[in-house]
Amino acid sequence: MAQLLRVQNFTVSRDGIAAGEDQTLERPFGHVQPERLFSWAGATASWPMRTDPGGSRGLDDYFTRDFDRNIGAEIMGRNKFGPQRGPWPDDAWRGWWGDEPPFRTPVFVMTHHERPSFTLSDTTFHFVGGDPADVLAQAREAAQGKDVRLGGGVTTIREFLDADLVDTLHVVVSPVTLGTGLRLWDSPGELLDRFHLEAVPSPSGVTHHLFWRK
Amino acid sequence: MAQLLRVQNFTVSRDGIAAGEDQTLERPFGHVQPERLFSWAGATASWPMRTDPGGSRGLDDYFTRDFDRNIGAEIMGRNKFGPQRGPWPDDAWRGWWGDEPPFRTPVFVMTHHERPSFTLSDTTFHFVGGDPADVLAQAREAAQGKDVRLGGGVTTIREFLDADLVDTLHVVVSPVTLGTGLRLWDSPGELLDRFHLEAVPSPSGVTHHLFWRK
Repeated sequence: MAQLLRVQNFTVSRDGIAAGEDQTLERPFGHVQPERLFSWAGATASWPMRTDPGGSRGLDDYFTRDFDRNIGAEIMGRNKFGPQRGPWPDDAWRGWWGDEPPFRTPVFVMTHHERPSFTLSDTTFHFVGGDPADVLAQAREAAQGKDVRLGGGVTTIREFLDADLVDTLHVVVSPVTLGTGLRLWDSPGELLDRFHLEAVPSPSGVTHHLFWRK
Repeated sequence: MAQLLRVQNFTVSRDGIAAGEDQTLERPFGHVQPERLFSWAGATASWPMRTDPGGSRGLDDYFTRDFDRNIGAEIMGRNKFGPQRGPWPDDAWRGWWGDEPPFRTPVFVMTHHERPSFTLSDTTFHFVGGDPADVLAQAREAAQGKDVRLGGGVTTIREFLDADLVDTLHVVVSPVTLGTGLRLWDSPGELLDRFHLEAVPSPSGVTHHLFWRK
């Protein structure tokens, strides 16, 4: 079985925006309130950040519970790890993901400014340079035969799409319009030259877009 | 996390029929041609019985790949194991599932006629009497904290529903009408007193029915 590179549960607005600009330490999504995009996921029983019992077990839950299925590593852009730009001010701050990050695998953070790897609970963060193909090769090796999750954000996903390295994408379109911000696409149709697409409306109001290679 | 009892990928016709009558060794589904019900599953990349690469990775694939997620045991009715009725003629015949059954966990076959357990590849079949609650207790213990799959057929699912032991059901309605056979329901609405329901049409033509306890 080939090792796939998979985008999962990546959520954008109706106008294709995944995050605001002006990202800060306090506002990982910049001017966008993340709950406007992600409330669909927080309502499910299998949302990895859930701390209380309960939650829905309908369609959306199939997607949140697939989050870690057969995933052996994640690749993320630097701005999914933290708001810093340029050289790291220090190594003491260890990312937005808390003491128990939900990834539970090696995570490869793409950056031109390397720093030492470290482990939080069962997640190890590595900071790597190189082009997408180089980073994917490292992540595949770490994944030990399992698939690799491409975690975002927009810039990172666009880079891997441009390099034609993505095998499947699950993109959730939330029923909000944001106007400005970091845009994944103008329309899902942009990917149809290379991917099959099923667009599946959920009773929650979001539409799941499932792409896989032709 | 509670151990759930889950029905998964159980497929019925538009008129609620899951199998034909007159089951024989050669015809596990009696007068019903199983491909009329199950072609949706066979088309997916993650169908456990798939031997060649390929297959779709759209909505239906999320359901087939969820088949073994967090499952530690299966319960099945005797007629999902074989066509025999009454005392076992001998112990040499070891079920319909071949040398590498897709379950890969302990499987509890409900029967009034016990016989010794045996293992095929990484599946062990146990033959157990008792009422649904007794069998579920044994399966839960064998599942070691994971969920238990209720594998069918119709009679077995109805028994566990009557005993109010089922936590979630995924029932696929295929766009065929069969007229006669073993019927799960007259309508999915029969379960709405106890379950939430989301009915999700798939581009393949089937409709996924997702039930979870109120």
